[in-house]
Amino acid sequence: MSLLVVGTVAFDEIETSLGKTGRILGGAGTYVGLSASHLISDIRMSAVVGGDFPQKYLNLFAGRGLDIQGIDVIPDQKTFYWSGRYHDNMNQRDTLATELNVLAGFDPVLPEEYRDSRFLMLGNLTPSIQRKVIEQMNERPKLICMDTMNFWMDTAWKDLLDVVSMVDILAVNEEEARQLSGKHSLVQAARKIQTMGPPCVIVKRGEHGALLFYEDQKFYAPAMPLDDVVDPTGAGDSFAGGFMGYLCKHDDISFESMKNALIFGAALASFSVEKFGTERLLEITDEDIQERLVDFVKLVSFSL
Amino acid sequence: MSLLVVGTVAFDEIETSLGKTGRILGGAGTYVGLSASHLISDIRMSAVVGGDFPQKYLNLFAGRGLDIQGIDVIPDQKTFYWSGRYHDNMNQRDTLATELNVLAGFDPVLPEEYRDSRFLMLGNLTPSIQRKVIEQMNERPKLICMDTMNFWMDTAWKDLLDVVSMVDILAVNEEEARQLSGKHSLVQAARKIQTMGPPCVIVKRGEHGALLFYEDQKFYAPAMPLDDVVDPTGAGDSFAGGFMGYLCKHDDISFESMKNALIFGAALASFSVEKFGTERLLEITDEDIQERLVDFVKLVSFSL
Repeated sequence: MSLLVVGTVAFDEIETSLGKTGRILGGAGTYVGLSASHLISDIRMSAVVGGDFPQKYLNLFAGRGLDIQGIDVIPDQKTFYWSGRYHDNMNQRDTLATELNVLAGFDPVLPEEYRDSRFLMLGNLTPSIQRKVIEQMNERPKLICMDTMNFWMDTAWKDLLDVVSMVDILAVNEEEARQLSGKHSLVQAARKIQTMGPPCVIVKRGEHGALLFYEDQKFYAPAMPLDDVVDPTGAGDSFAGGFMGYLCKHDDISFESMKNALIFGAALASFSVEKFGTERLLEITDEDIQERLVDFVKLVSFSL
Repeated sequence: MSLLVVGTVAFDEIETSLGKTGRILGGAGTYVGLSASHLISDIRMSAVVGGDFPQKYLNLFAGRGLDIQGIDVIPDQKTFYWSGRYHDNMNQRDTLATELNVLAGFDPVLPEEYRDSRFLMLGNLTPSIQRKVIEQMNERPKLICMDTMNFWMDTAWKDLLDVVSMVDILAVNEEEARQLSGKHSLVQAARKIQTMGPPCVIVKRGEHGALLFYEDQKFYAPAMPLDDVVDPTGAGDSFAGGFMGYLCKHDDISFESMKNALIFGAALASFSVEKFGTERLLEITDEDIQERLVDFVKLVSFSL
């Protein structure tokens, strides 16, 4: 099955107590695509970059099997840039700089070949743009998952509700789930969000894992406790990539399938944070992933 | 098997966004004992209360099968009193008042009948007192679990290390694990604490569950996502009570047994927070617990 990933492809510059990167490859779309590429081969990328975006990164995507014809290059503009510094606890970060650049005008026109994609991952973008992507599909994808953030709740509430009503899965963090629903209890928050449209809600909890609310059932995928978290950037997007990659590979969107998909997502996320940027995602093998999955099984298995 | 519980029996006064209690029954020992009483019948309580402690609470303990001969009543003094107010998120609280009263002089002399207890739960107390309890045992219990808090790391470091070196399990929260070990990563923190003595470390993470480090293995017990958390007071102690109750009931301290014990602990904790104080712990039935355990199995089961 095919997966369409719409999201940012960017430059990141990251500082943690363990070190400082220069300008490296980043962006939600990047992490989703590279993570999913460990599971499936038909991944279509929709994004925009500037003339400063190195050809080597595009080659890297293509080398991982990603279809890059939907990555628009705007020669006389600059690529989206984000810079941040993590606190020692790695759970908080300060944004040092955000330069939207090409992203300010991102309004993707999907290549014809993308419009039959069966799975669609909408990264965090302007809600009206997310909606326009959905409307360009030839037929409604089998599954649409979307990310969003508080900013859109503050600035584009109606547009956001509009697109939320069109998707199958909303994947957000705790704070976002609470703001969107007005409920503190995650159980109540998920129930409220389900009334807005999506039958499935994923609450991403960082180092505490993720909760899936699937109609009236729920499932908890832990995060793997690690010796060292080097760089949390992109963990949530790596998680989404592993999750969508699994569903797409098996062409199965049942609750049982989603549980496994969450564990794959958690596994990919656990690798992603072990090194700066996308480095670890790019070096892991199928064997590494299998070993990590076994670790996850061990981590939560009991026999009452 | 027998479980000796040494810990506070107290008055609590609790305020949350959902309401305000008067002076109600509280204390770590109380929650541990009442929680464990759902699993085992031979529970010996060691604590101290003042002349103001109502006989009805002692009757309540006895009615739940707890041995109360080790609860000293000091007629001319007052019972330990704690009052706190929870923030809306229920994860933070402000202490409004702490009156040690009888607790300031707590130096338990164990009844002879307690000294052969096979399982020992040392609630958070002055480390030197915890040590004196261990030294009063006729023979070394099969399993000793202890709780502690940052305060003792700041004020009684050497005494704390002393008692930590004598126990099998240290059960602390994330912040405490980090302070004790000087490590941020919980994996590294647990490994460091293991070098101090205990082969097992339990990191209690509140609404995110608990992590067990057992020699070089680890296990994650989630917390049950609930519709409403009414009062988090005593959740960690209810958890400890369910955990120790299970181990004691099965007289099995293997890793496999501890995993099940953690799930029992998480189940009891999940009930505890559903109403103020000990109310819910006192009303639940075996059937309620079985149902909740099934919910836990469902929450984390997948079949990769």
